[in-house]
Amino acid sequence: MKRRRFLQAAAASTGAALGSTFPAPAISQDQIEWRMVTCWPRNLPAIGVGAQRIADAITEMSDGRLTVKLYAAGELVPAFEAFDAVRDGIAHCCHDAPYYWVAKHGAMPFFCSVPGGLTPPEHNAWIQYGGGQALWDELYADFGIRGFLAGTGGPNMGGWFRKEINSIDDLDGLKMRIPGLGANVLNRLGVVTVNLSGGEVLPSLQAGVLDATEWAGPYNDLAMGFYKIAQYYYGPGVHEPGPGLSLTVNRAAYDALPGDLQAIVRMAAGEENMRMYAETVNGNAAALDALINKHGVSVRHFPEPVLQAMLEHAAEVVEEAGAADDISRRTYASWKTFRDRMVVLQPYGALGYLAGRAAYYG
Amino acid sequence: MKRRRFLQAAAASTGAALGSTFPAPAISQDQIEWRMVTCWPRNLPAIGVGAQRIADAITEMSDGRLTVKLYAAGELVPAFEAFDAVRDGIAHCCHDAPYYWVAKHGAMPFFCSVPGGLTPPEHNAWIQYGGGQALWDELYADFGIRGFLAGTGGPNMGGWFRKEINSIDDLDGLKMRIPGLGANVLNRLGVVTVNLSGGEVLPSLQAGVLDATEWAGPYNDLAMGFYKIAQYYYGPGVHEPGPGLSLTVNRAAYDALPGDLQAIVRMAAGEENMRMYAETVNGNAAALDALINKHGVSVRHFPEPVLQAMLEHAAEVVEEAGAADDISRRTYASWKTFRDRMVVLQPYGALGYLAGRAAYYG
Repeated sequence: MKRRRFLQAAAASTGAALGSTFPAPAISQDQIEWRMVTCWPRNLPAIGVGAQRIADAITEMSDGRLTVKLYAAGELVPAFEAFDAVRDGIAHCCHDAPYYWVAKHGAMPFFCSVPGGLTPPEHNAWIQYGGGQALWDELYADFGIRGFLAGTGGPNMGGWFRKEINSIDDLDGLKMRIPGLGANVLNRLGVVTVNLSGGEVLPSLQAGVLDATEWAGPYNDLAMGFYKIAQYYYGPGVHEPGPGLSLTVNRAAYDALPGDLQAIVRMAAGEENMRMYAETVNGNAAALDALINKHGVSVRHFPEPVLQAMLEHAAEVVEEAGAADDISRRTYASWKTFRDRMVVLQPYGALGYLAGRAAYYG
Repeated sequence: MKRRRFLQAAAASTGAALGSTFPAPAISQDQIEWRMVTCWPRNLPAIGVGAQRIADAITEMSDGRLTVKLYAAGELVPAFEAFDAVRDGIAHCCHDAPYYWVAKHGAMPFFCSVPGGLTPPEHNAWIQYGGGQALWDELYADFGIRGFLAGTGGPNMGGWFRKEINSIDDLDGLKMRIPGLGANVLNRLGVVTVNLSGGEVLPSLQAGVLDATEWAGPYNDLAMGFYKIAQYYYGPGVHEPGPGLSLTVNRAAYDALPGDLQAIVRMAAGEENMRMYAETVNGNAAALDALINKHGVSVRHFPEPVLQAMLEHAAEVVEEAGAADDISRRTYASWKTFRDRMVVLQPYGALGYLAGRAAYYG
């Protein structure tokens, strides 16, 4: 590990703001200041404002003894360098989606979301009570960091399409923006996948370079304006049923805190697990209403054979991701045992209830 | 309001432990001690241990500046006097289910769970982002208290039955333990409902005084041992789709805290919203597995006409509960608007995803 790989360069480029470094915490009159970097634009609904809530809650609960200053994507390091920034000591923590770091280790997506996987409550249950946290801690120990669950984006929609999807054949040759393991799933159905950053997607749809894109759920998708170009909005998708976000902390920085401040950091992260989900559920409902009734979007379900084919390829892709090495195999085994139990439970839980309610009110 | 109705009696009966009272907080060398009463046995899975986690988290995050001592049901006051204890200053806070206090005001169940209502994430979304908290604050202001969401038990099962339920007629004349608005729903289907405390239920089933009982979900129900007497376990029910529990605080005690300790109290409560749900989901899955594969229980869904009849009567019962007075009407209107949006959203959210996954793996 090169713990200080970026440290000198970053300190040189940003000057006084980075004058204090750790493992020795930045202490002044018993006050500690932490830098939090994120993978999101400042104030991105639910996710970006959730990161800010975590920073503010730590500062407030500690009465300023631990002040957390948030640097949104690009303000201190680019979005996809957040992990390295925490590992190398440029930032003390980051708010991120662990599947972004799949190039660091193939097991990363299990600690965030995998296709055909777990909903947000299920993911929290696996991490917190089903054995997931111990595996996550083991994986992150090699990087000198720790991950704490810190919010979720909720189940993602399948995406925006410029033409109707009536069969699996309609996916063949389609050019679609979708990253990660979800792209691997759609590749097997003939989709030509590309990964574009947020700002590139709408122009690419407009120029006809893209036929389709996924992004998140209605709350975030409405703000992106995709409805202006792609009139068919399919969902849900299978690629990200419940992305679990992470407050990722530098282990040395965390270990240097007294116990009360460690607890404050953990609880500020954990409080977002339901809060960010609640903000997303409320925002999704209002946005879906606007998309249907104000913007005239055609909101649809994938035909059942398309959804089932996606789930079949998702199962293959996830099994392959869980076969690479020892920790991947143990992670997949733990996760799969849990997922199988959820399949048995849910008809008597949220699935059974929501299906009955939908039949009555639908 | 009789703020000190119980105070003198309680102090007399419990002696020195209650020597310090508030609104003037119990301060000794800058340390405050709060008494938390609960409606649960000490260490009741998920719910009782969740209350203890809240108490411990406040103590730990404040480094002992605010120490919370938990008194389980009956240790300081009986379970169903927790609300009065907080209102009257015998305890500084309680961990409770707001629908227990329906005799105080008919709108209380909306801030916990009503038949045919919201799942845990939906309830959190309505309270935190859909207007619910402001109505809850308004209702509780009259009692000198505040409520903060603090965990959930998850969707309840329909209950344990000694005979099969194949039609609505099979419910007629059935003697069943079920409290609250759920009892009102089943009354309209001919069920003779009674409310018994936990320890009375199994003996009543054994003696044939009861034909059926509901309790919670598999995690708690397994521990109660109902499977020894009633072999048919039906679910889900419609009566409590997502009970939102509350950390209820005496307003004067809360207002007397400095801002950092107020934030610590709020965040300790809020962290339980997903954690207790996660513990319940994990525990339910393991318990359902044991009930089916170890104890040979027949786990079933209510026939669709029975479930739909329950939802129909649930809609009537909830509408009536929301008609009593001005705040009930405003609460029902806000809640119903939100519930209607959830009905539109869920086929594209958790319901749509879980149904597709169930079809693939089921």
